[in-house]
Amino acid sequence: METSKKMVSEEELKKYFPDLPSGPLDGYRKKSSFSWRRMKLACDNSTTLKLKHDIWTFMETHPLFQHSDVSIPLDEERHIAVKRMYAVHNENFTPFEKIIEEPRVIQAEAEAIFMFDSSLAVKKSLTFGMFANTIRGSGRPHQYHFAEAVEEGKIGGCFALTEVAHGSNAKGMRTTATYNPEKKQFIMHSADFEAAKFWVGCLGKCATHAIVYAMLVSKGTNHGLHSFIVPIRDPKTLKPFPGVIVGDIGEKIGLNGIDNGFVMFNNYAIPKELALDKFGGVDDSGDYQSPFRDPSKRFGASLGILSGGRVMITSISTNYLQKAIVIAVRYSAVRKQFAAENAVEETPVLEYQQQQIRLLPYLAGTFALRIFCTWFGSVHINMTIDNYAGKQDELSAARGIELHALSSAVKPVCGWLARDGIQNCREACGGHGYLKAAGIGDLRNENDANCTYEGENSLLLQQNSNWLLSVWPKRRELNVAQESPLGSLEFLLNVDDVLKKTCPWKTVEELTDPYNLTQMYKWLTAYMLKTTYEKVSKLKSDGADNLQAKNDSQSYNAVALSVIYGENYILNHFYKTAISFEDEACKKVLLKLVSLYGAFLLEKHMATLYIGGYFTLDQGLHLREGVLRLCAQVAPEAVALSDTLAPPDFCIKSVLGMSDGEAYKHLQNRVMTYPGAMTRPEWWRDVVYWDSYIPSKL
Amino acid sequence: METSKKMVSEEELKKYFPDLPSGPLDGYRKKSSFSWRRMKLACDNSTTLKLKHDIWTFMETHPLFQHSDVSIPLDEERHIAVKRMYAVHNENFTPFEKIIEEPRVIQAEAEAIFMFDSSLAVKKSLTFGMFANTIRGSGRPHQYHFAEAVEEGKIGGCFALTEVAHGSNAKGMRTTATYNPEKKQFIMHSADFEAAKFWVGCLGKCATHAIVYAMLVSKGTNHGLHSFIVPIRDPKTLKPFPGVIVGDIGEKIGLNGIDNGFVMFNNYAIPKELALDKFGGVDDSGDYQSPFRDPSKRFGASLGILSGGRVMITSISTNYLQKAIVIAVRYSAVRKQFAAENAVEETPVLEYQQQQIRLLPYLAGTFALRIFCTWFGSVHINMTIDNYAGKQDELSAARGIELHALSSAVKPVCGWLARDGIQNCREACGGHGYLKAAGIGDLRNENDANCTYEGENSLLLQQNSNWLLSVWPKRRELNVAQESPLGSLEFLLNVDDVLKKTCPWKTVEELTDPYNLTQMYKWLTAYMLKTTYEKVSKLKSDGADNLQAKNDSQSYNAVALSVIYGENYILNHFYKTAISFEDEACKKVLLKLVSLYGAFLLEKHMATLYIGGYFTLDQGLHLREGVLRLCAQVAPEAVALSDTLAPPDFCIKSVLGMSDGEAYKHLQNRVMTYPGAMTRPEWWRDVVYWDSYIPSKL
Repeated sequence: METSKKMVSEEELKKYFPDLPSGPLDGYRKKSSFSWRRMKLACDNSTTLKLKHDIWTFMETHPLFQHSDVSIPLDEERHIAVKRMYAVHNENFTPFEKIIEEPRVIQAEAEAIFMFDSSLAVKKSLTFGMFANTIRGSGRPHQYHFAEAVEEGKIGGCFALTEVAHGSNAKGMRTTATYNPEKKQFIMHSADFEAAKFWVGCLGKCATHAIVYAMLVSKGTNHGLHSFIVPIRDPKTLKPFPGVIVGDIGEKIGLNGIDNGFVMFNNYAIPKELALDKFGGVDDSGDYQSPFRDPSKRFGASLGILSGGRVMITSISTNYLQKAIVIAVRYSAVRKQFAAENAVEETPVLEYQQQQIRLLPYLAGTFALRIFCTWFGSVHINMTIDNYAGKQDELSAARGIELHALSSAVKPVCGWLARDGIQNCREACGGHGYLKAAGIGDLRNENDANCTYEGENSLLLQQNSNWLLSVWPKRRELNVAQESPLGSLEFLLNVDDVLKKTCPWKTVEELTDPYNLTQMYKWLTAYMLKTTYEKVSKLKSDGADNLQAKNDSQSYNAVALSVIYGENYILNHFYKTAISFEDEACKKVLLKLVSLYGAFLLEKHMATLYIGGYFTLDQGLHLREGVLRLCAQVAPEAVALSDTLAPPDFCIKSVLGMSDGEAYKHLQNRVMTYPGAMTRPEWWRDVVYWDSYIPSKL
Repeated sequence: METSKKMVSEEELKKYFPDLPSGPLDGYRKKSSFSWRRMKLACDNSTTLKLKHDIWTFMETHPLFQHSDVSIPLDEERHIAVKRMYAVHNENFTPFEKIIEEPRVIQAEAEAIFMFDSSLAVKKSLTFGMFANTIRGSGRPHQYHFAEAVEEGKIGGCFALTEVAHGSNAKGMRTTATYNPEKKQFIMHSADFEAAKFWVGCLGKCATHAIVYAMLVSKGTNHGLHSFIVPIRDPKTLKPFPGVIVGDIGEKIGLNGIDNGFVMFNNYAIPKELALDKFGGVDDSGDYQSPFRDPSKRFGASLGILSGGRVMITSISTNYLQKAIVIAVRYSAVRKQFAAENAVEETPVLEYQQQQIRLLPYLAGTFALRIFCTWFGSVHINMTIDNYAGKQDELSAARGIELHALSSAVKPVCGWLARDGIQNCREACGGHGYLKAAGIGDLRNENDANCTYEGENSLLLQQNSNWLLSVWPKRRELNVAQESPLGSLEFLLNVDDVLKKTCPWKTVEELTDPYNLTQMYKWLTAYMLKTTYEKVSKLKSDGADNLQAKNDSQSYNAVALSVIYGENYILNHFYKTAISFEDEACKKVLLKLVSLYGAFLLEKHMATLYIGGYFTLDQGLHLREGVLRLCAQVAPEAVALSDTLAPPDFCIKSVLGMSDGEAYKHLQNRVMTYPGAMTRPEWWRDVVYWDSYIPSKL
C-alpha cells in the first residue's frame, strides 16, 4: 500500500488529470511550488485514482447523468436519482475481489459518486450496502438470499430504526414484534403515529423490504430492540402489503433525491425466519436465547452496524467541504476588487487577509480531513472484512471499542468543520455566492444532515466522553498499545507529567511548528479530560447521580473534550502523513497545512490554554500572528491545492468554481439561458392591472 | 412615547393576544414568573401592537395569504409575491400622518409582514419604499411625480447599484451615462456583461423604472457615480424598451419570491431631467455643478440612502432569528428523550444543559436585538423625517456619521448572531428540524442574504473600524455628547484609566452581574481599539502604506474590534431598557437575559481578556459557570419568552413550533396529507423493471 504512491508515474497522473484549461487562474497556478497532480497521492493511490476516473468517465458520457441547469420538482428529483442509482449499481465498479485486494476502493467509489450527486450516493448506499451488510452482520445464512436479491436489484432495501418520538434514545422505541408460537410468526405493530418508523431512507417510494428494529415480545416479556427483515411492498407492483401503512415524509432541507419514508404496522404478521437473530432471539416455542449474557452487549452488537455509518459520514462531510472550498478559492482568485494605490489592476480578493482567514484554514482542514477519512475508511473496511471472515486477533475487541469511540468524536468534528467551512465559503463568495448556480447553498443544505443523522452530534460526543472518562482513572496502568490499537489514547502517555508543564514555546515560529502544535494539543486534550473528570466527580460528591452529573458536565467540558480529542487525533494523523510524504515539494506544503490547521483550531480553544495556565500573555498574540502568516504563505499555493482537491468540472456544478476560472462567462451563460429569464412572465397582466383583482384604495 | 407602555391595559393586551391553546406546553407556561403579554411592551407600544394586529388579521382572513403546504415552482412563487405585495400596499397601513405621529410604525409594519413572508416584505420595500425614498432624497421636485406614481402602483421601481464585477468597490463601476448637450440626453451604456447591473431586486420580472448608478461623463470627463431614473419597461405592457437588455438572474439560495434581475444598456438615451442631480450634475451645456466641493462627500451623500438598508437589515436578521428560536424552544419543551432513573416520564430536552446552551443565549440575544432594532429604526426614521423637513440641529451631522458607523457594525453583528442562532436551532431540533415543514431551513437560507447584501459584512466592519481608528488619537479631547450623540463612543470616557485596570470581579455572581458585564465590555472595546490602532501604526512605521496597513490589521484586530463595538452598544442598550422597565416581574427576567447575552458573548472573546491581562486564571472558569447557571435559570421562562416573541401560528409555518405545542400531531397531519405521500409514484415501473432501460450486467 504505502509503496503504491511511488509507483504512480507522471504519465499515469497526466492520463487521469490532463492539463487544466488556460485562463484567469494561470497566474496563481504558476506561483505554486508543487505538483497538484502528485499531491493527489496524499489521499489516493493508483487503484483508487483509476477507479474514480472510470466512474467519472462513465457518468460524464451517460445521458442519465447530464445535469439540469434549473431546479426540478421533488418527484422528478427522486425519479432521476433512482434511475441513476440502478445505472451505477449495474456497473459493479467495486466487486468483492477488488475490495479484498484494495479495501480503499469502497470509499473511493463513494467519493466519486458523492462528488457528482450526494442523493445518488446516499440512496445507493442505503438501498444496497446498508441492507445487505446488516443481513450479513446480524442475520444467519438462511437469510443471505435477501442480500443477494438486493444486490441483483430484485428487491429494494432500507433500514428502519428511528421513530417519530424516539431517535437518540433507541431503548425508548415502541414498535413491537410479538411472537406467536402457534403460527411461528412475529406480529409487527405500531401503537400510534409517534411509534411510526420515520426518516427511513428509500422507504418513501421505492423499498420493498426494510430492516426494522422493534421490541421483541414473547410470552409477555419485552426482550428489547431486535431487528427483522420486513416485507413492505410487493416487489412486482410496489404496492404495500395489507397491514403496512407506508408513505413519504415529504420535502427536506436537502438530499431530496432520497425518498425518506415512514411506516406503521397494523398487527402485521411476518414469518419467524425473518428475525435477524444471530445475536439473540426466540426459539420456536418462544423462549429467548442469545449468545450474549449481557443484554446491553447484544444490543451493542446489533447496533454495531451504525459505526460504519459514522465512519462514512466523516467522509461525506469532507466531500461537501471539499467542493465548497474549491469553488470559493477559485472564485477568490479571479474576483478582483479594489486596487492598491497606483496599481494598474484591481487585487484578487484572495490576497486580502480577511478573505484568507475565512478560507485557507478550511482548505488546510479539508486536507486534514480527507487524509484522515481515507485511512479511517480503510480501517473500518478491514475490520468488517475480518469480521465476516471470522478473523479475530487479540486486539479486535479493543479496536472495535476504540473505533466506536473515535467515530463518535470525529463524525461531529468533521460535520461541524464542514458546516463552518461551507458557510465561510458561501460568505466569501459575496453576492454571487448566494446564487443557486454557485452551488454552495446546496452543499450547505446537504451537509446539514450530517450534523444530525446517525446520531445527533452532541449525543455522539457524549458517548465518546463517557468512554474517555472511564479511561482516566486507569491512565497510569493503561497499556496504550493493547487498549488503544488505533492510538487515540496516546495523549495519555506520561499524562501527569505533561499536565505539569507550561508551554515552552514563545515565538511565532515555535508556536506554529507542526510538531510543537501536536504537543500543545496533547496538553489540551489531557487537560480537558482531567478537568471534565474532576467536574463530574465534584457533582457526584455534591450528591448528583451518575446520569445527572454527566449531563451537567457537558457544555464547556465533556463536549469540548470530545471535540478536542477528535481534532487531536486528526491533527496527529495529518502530521504523520505529511512528514512521511515522499515528494519533497508536496511535503513542504503539506507541513504548512498541518501548521495552519493546528494553529487555527488551537486559537479557538485558546481561552482554555490560559485558564489552565499553559499559555501566558503573549503566546496567544503570537499564535494569532502565526495563523495570519501561515495564511499568507498558503495563499500562493491555494489554487493548486484546490486543483488537487477538485473533481472534474461536470461534478463541480458551480458557475463560480470551474477549472478554467471564467466565473463571469459561466455566470453570463447560465443567466442568459435560464428558462424564461428574458421573457415577460405569463402573469404580467397581474402586475400592470393589479387593480383588476384588488379594488384600489390608492 | 415612554409612557405608552403603562397605558396599555390588560384588556387591550388580551384582545390582541388571546389565551394560547392548552396542551403540552402548559407545564412550562405555568412555571414562568412573568406575564408574556406584558413583556411585549419591551419592544412594542399600543400603536404598534394594534398595527401588527390589524396587518395579521388582514392577511389571515385574505385568500391570497393562505400558505401552500408544498414548495411551489419559482415562477409561481414570484407571481404570488407580486399579488400579495399589491394587496398589502393597497391597504396603506402606514400613511404619512401615522408615521409622523409614531415613527415606529414603519418598522412595526415591516416586522409584521416579515413574520409572514420575507420575500413579500423585501419586495414591497424595494418596489415602493427604496425607489420613492431615493427620488425624494437625491432628486428634485420635478421628479417627485415618479415617487407618487410608484406609490399609486402606476409604475414599479427598483434600485440598481451593484454590477456583475463590482459591488463593494462602488467606485470601480463601469456603467456610463454620457451627456449629449445637443439632445439634452444621457446615453446609458454597459460596456460588457461584467458591467451589467446585477442582483437588482424586482427588476427580473416587474420593475418599469430603475434608479441606476452610472459614471457621469460629460465633455470627456468622468465625474464619478451618479444616479438616474431610467425607464426600463413600458408600464402598460411590461415589454422592455429598445436599448435595454433586461432579465431575471434566476434561482437563489432563498428569497425566491423576489425577482432579482440584471440590465445592460446599449447606448440607451434618456432625457436629462431624469438625472437625480440634487447633489451634483451637469447643466444644460454639460458643465459640472455640485453643492459639494469635495466629490467624495457628494458620493457619500448620494449613497446615504444605503444606511437605511443596513438599519433595516439589523431588524430583518432579528425577525428570522426570532421565528427560529420560537420554533426550537417550543419543540424542545415538548420533545422528550431519556428518563432519569425511576422517572415515570422522559425528560423534555430543554432540561438538558447542552440543549440549553445551544438555545437560551440566542433567546436572550433575540430580546437584545429586538429591543435594539426597535430603537434604531426609530432613530433612523426620525432622522429621515427631519432631513425631508430640512430640520437640522447642531448634532445632525455627527448623528449622521455615527449612524453610518454604528449601522456598519450592528448589521454584521445581528446578521451573524442570527446565522449562528438559526443554525443552533436547526440542530437542536434534531432530525425533524431537517424537514422542510419545520421551517428552519428556509429561515437559514433567507437570513444568509443578510450577511452579504447592502454591504458584505467584513467590508462594512472595515468601514466601521476606519472610523473608530480615526477617533482614537483624539480620545482625550473628545466631547462625547457632541461627537457621539447616539452614545456609541461612551466607552472612550476615561479610557486611559479604564485600560489600566484589571477585572475586579472574581465570583460567578459578580462576573454575571449585568452592570459588571457592561463594564467588562467597556474595557474590551477600548482594548481592541487601542491594540488595533497600535498594530496599524506599527505596520505603517514598518513601511506599509495606509491601505495596506489597514488591510493587514483586519483579522483578530479590526474585524473583532468592530464586532465588539457593536455588541457593546447593543448590550448597553439592552441593559438600560431592562433596568428601567416598569413591570417588576418582567424586569427581573429581562435582567437575567442581559446577563446571559453579555456573559455568553464575553466568553467567546475570553482569550483576548487573558491576552490583555484583564482576566486571570479562574475568572474564565467562573464566567463559564455563570453562563450555565443563567441558562438553568432562564429555562423555566423560555416558553413564555417565546410566546412573547411569537407571531400568530399562521406566520410560524412550522409543524414543530405552533403555540399548542402539538408537534407530533402537526407533523402527522402534514406528512399524511402531503400530495402523493401515500401513493405509488407514476414512475414505479422504472424501479421494478429497471433492466428495461439499463441492460443488466448483474
